[in-house]
Amino acid sequence: MKRYEVLADAIAREIRSGNLPVGSRLPSLRQITAQHGVSQSTVFRAYYLLEEWGLIRARERSGYFVAPGAGISLPQTPQPAQAPAQRAAALAQSAKVDISDLVFSVLEAAKHPGFVPLGSAFPSPRLFPLQRLAKSLGQASRLVNAWSTVVDLPPGNEQLRRQIALRYLAIGIAQPIEEIVVTNGALEALNLCLMAVTRPGDVVAVESPGFYAALQAIERLDLRAVEIPANPVTGLDLDALAEALQTQPIRACWFMTNFQNPTGVTLTVEKKKALVELLAEHDIPLIEDDVYGELHFDSDYPLPARAFDKKGLVMHCSSFSKTLAPGYRIGWVAAGRHADKVQRLKLMTTLSASIPDQAGIADYLQHGGYDKHLRKLRGALRSQLADMNAALTRWLPPNVRWSQPSGGYFLWLELPATIDAMQLHRLAVERGISVAPGPIFSARHGFRHCIRLNFGHPWSKEIEEAVRTLGSLIEHAGEANGQAGDQAG
Amino acid sequence: MKRYEVLADAIAREIRSGNLPVGSRLPSLRQITAQHGVSQSTVFRAYYLLEEWGLIRARERSGYFVAPGAGISLPQTPQPAQAPAQRAAALAQSAKVDISDLVFSVLEAAKHPGFVPLGSAFPSPRLFPLQRLAKSLGQASRLVNAWSTVVDLPPGNEQLRRQIALRYLAIGIAQPIEEIVVTNGALEALNLCLMAVTRPGDVVAVESPGFYAALQAIERLDLRAVEIPANPVTGLDLDALAEALQTQPIRACWFMTNFQNPTGVTLTVEKKKALVELLAEHDIPLIEDDVYGELHFDSDYPLPARAFDKKGLVMHCSSFSKTLAPGYRIGWVAAGRHADKVQRLKLMTTLSASIPDQAGIADYLQHGGYDKHLRKLRGALRSQLADMNAALTRWLPPNVRWSQPSGGYFLWLELPATIDAMQLHRLAVERGISVAPGPIFSARHGFRHCIRLNFGHPWSKEIEEAVRTLGSLIEHAGEANGQAGDQAG
Repeated sequence: MKRYEVLADAIAREIRSGNLPVGSRLPSLRQITAQHGVSQSTVFRAYYLLEEWGLIRARERSGYFVAPGAGISLPQTPQPAQAPAQRAAALAQSAKVDISDLVFSVLEAAKHPGFVPLGSAFPSPRLFPLQRLAKSLGQASRLVNAWSTVVDLPPGNEQLRRQIALRYLAIGIAQPIEEIVVTNGALEALNLCLMAVTRPGDVVAVESPGFYAALQAIERLDLRAVEIPANPVTGLDLDALAEALQTQPIRACWFMTNFQNPTGVTLTVEKKKALVELLAEHDIPLIEDDVYGELHFDSDYPLPARAFDKKGLVMHCSSFSKTLAPGYRIGWVAAGRHADKVQRLKLMTTLSASIPDQAGIADYLQHGGYDKHLRKLRGALRSQLADMNAALTRWLPPNVRWSQPSGGYFLWLELPATIDAMQLHRLAVERGISVAPGPIFSARHGFRHCIRLNFGHPWSKEIEEAVRTLGSLIEHAGEANGQAGDQAG
Repeated sequence: MKRYEVLADAIAREIRSGNLPVGSRLPSLRQITAQHGVSQSTVFRAYYLLEEWGLIRARERSGYFVAPGAGISLPQTPQPAQAPAQRAAALAQSAKVDISDLVFSVLEAAKHPGFVPLGSAFPSPRLFPLQRLAKSLGQASRLVNAWSTVVDLPPGNEQLRRQIALRYLAIGIAQPIEEIVVTNGALEALNLCLMAVTRPGDVVAVESPGFYAALQAIERLDLRAVEIPANPVTGLDLDALAEALQTQPIRACWFMTNFQNPTGVTLTVEKKKALVELLAEHDIPLIEDDVYGELHFDSDYPLPARAFDKKGLVMHCSSFSKTLAPGYRIGWVAAGRHADKVQRLKLMTTLSASIPDQAGIADYLQHGGYDKHLRKLRGALRSQLADMNAALTRWLPPNVRWSQPSGGYFLWLELPATIDAMQLHRLAVERGISVAPGPIFSARHGFRHCIRLNFGHPWSKEIEEAVRTLGSLIEHAGEANGQAGDQAG
């Protein structure tokens, strides 16, 4: 842990224990630096963290105060917009990212086969037509032309790219097939896009909370992250983004516009248009992660930002891993003006995606009944969400709020500010349940009172039981901290 | 082209045209800087290039002189060792790499289906048991456990890693399966290894000539390259490497120890041992590219450097792309002490290799008769080499020399110093023949009088004809330049 995090934790304990009651003024910078023997910048960063955790609040020209559950956004109602001054502070500095250890320790737990995978990033593979797909793969690989190993080098298998272009056309996007580059899943597409438009040291805008892979890529490529608030109901804060574009040398944005991971929020068409226009003004590329778009519960595919792009600035990334073929690692990017660069990077780093798998999926898309499968899959996820909502209502204390996504398979829970999601995660793991704690979705390890739940698995007694266990863990954690507070007070 | 390259080309033309006859003294730095209005460092780099091209030679304390075909190594006889002073100069500076444009323009030509693929990097896919492999793939993908999409995440499919470990055991290497990470072909393995042990700005030692993908990776990751001479007969110059380790902050080495690309040279066991010991002294990791090892014409697999590593410093990379399954993109690295780091990078960048392809190859290795196939493949390559040798002897002018590899499918030709391989490449392309010109195998675009030929394709009239055409192209180019010299002289 960094020094400022240690300091923030110490102060957080003081607050949770009641030693620093609600409304009380925090010590001045000078006092703290003297008291803890740390630099002013360390104190500033610690206070910034505490503010992000919703434990303290700044009053203009009069220092920091312990907040009455302040800053806890309520998914059911739009979050009160931050005061410009605060937001400026929030965006004042881009952060070097240090997230991987945390993420991997959490993922390891989620990998356990025996575990109830509420923290998993994947839907249940039992929801996919693996047998029918295997048939297509077997046929395609027998028929595959020997020379395809050369011909199907990036941009990739032409049949497959035609099928992908047709799906764009179906939602009203005329996508030139030349700009489609087939990749090893969307994850590679996103990474190649980021490499294509940045150099070490560049600043990249991401969502907060957001997909940890973006933070890992930024860390790996020696970039710096500016976190733009993403509200579980209204989504990305465009005002904050506009401000960041003014105050920061942002070189690229990496956003998820549909069924965002982890909150599940989808940007409205108006917001997507505004986002594309804003970035077009600044000529900044948007790396659009849209891997969940096909998993919409309403009748239509929510148009991605790509649909409104006129300058070739949007790099639209998706894959078949979440909708059809987990493990085949076939994704793509419609990379617009950066397609050549991305294709070259692909050739340099992994040469190409699996030739038989590309041919197999192309065959399935032509003959396998993809749309029929998707309707079934969406229905299953919708009913699993209903089951999850019912269970959460049944077993969780009333002061827990959660988001209501209209697609995908993630829910975002906000627990009372006194509860530490990392601790909850550890307790859950001890009981054979994985959850995804908020801190893995933020470069500053914020959202300590939030968790992401996965409803991508057919409902079962085990899951119902797991939610019940989770409920009692939250209740007792709350009480424990509450008691601590009483004793101290 | 960089300014120093323009200058070098200008001087090279003066030499080839005879305006600067053999033995004549080149202008002093001061004269040139005045004459061409360039900096001293530009002149130094230009002279360095000319020296590398074998066109000029430095005499201690008395400046540079036009060399009598000096510096052209004769593959049949070991290259005379460079004078320490020269070598120091050669190693004095690590170079920022700028190779991709050149490589891609050449690869594009080689991709042409109609072309005689003497410049190709791949063997003929017709040499592989694609049907038998498809059977294994179809079976494995039907039987694959739904949960394998999670269970087979990196380090990868356990059956496959066991089969790979068994192949190590067969050549006397006890390879812990935990250190084997399955990747999207060897290319990803090599790139992940480089990422795992370097940071932007670090210096990496590569072979010269060497595999251009290493130079591309160095360019992409903002690293710097130190090129260690690799003689077509004796291989890597260990003295030069030892000196570089003293004078340069080298963080990693990327070498090909068996059937090196492009020269085809294999390091002796003694040299491999010495290499491993030298790097162990400095605690420098070796990224060992051994993708051609299985393609040995002698009875035994030439042991890789990995076999002599006691410190877990050798990261041994290979794949099935050149021996069994082109297009499946299944490779691996036995990453020693860096295995965890590599595994994490894999998870962060492409998540995993194709799950069905991993299972399919594991099935083939168990039931498909891999060793029988390899014996057949080696026999085919051996006889194709014989055909190529005969054709080269028949059609090429006597002053062309080429290497005699004992495996793989690449030959390295050294043409008269007056011939420009880039020009030869262009002329060949006009005649529907691709060749790989020397400059794509060096960060400084050296080896201008060398080309790499591929003998990985079943012998045919077309290939025989292509070699004949190549022969006459070389002859005429030589005459043309020779005449130019006479006229001028």
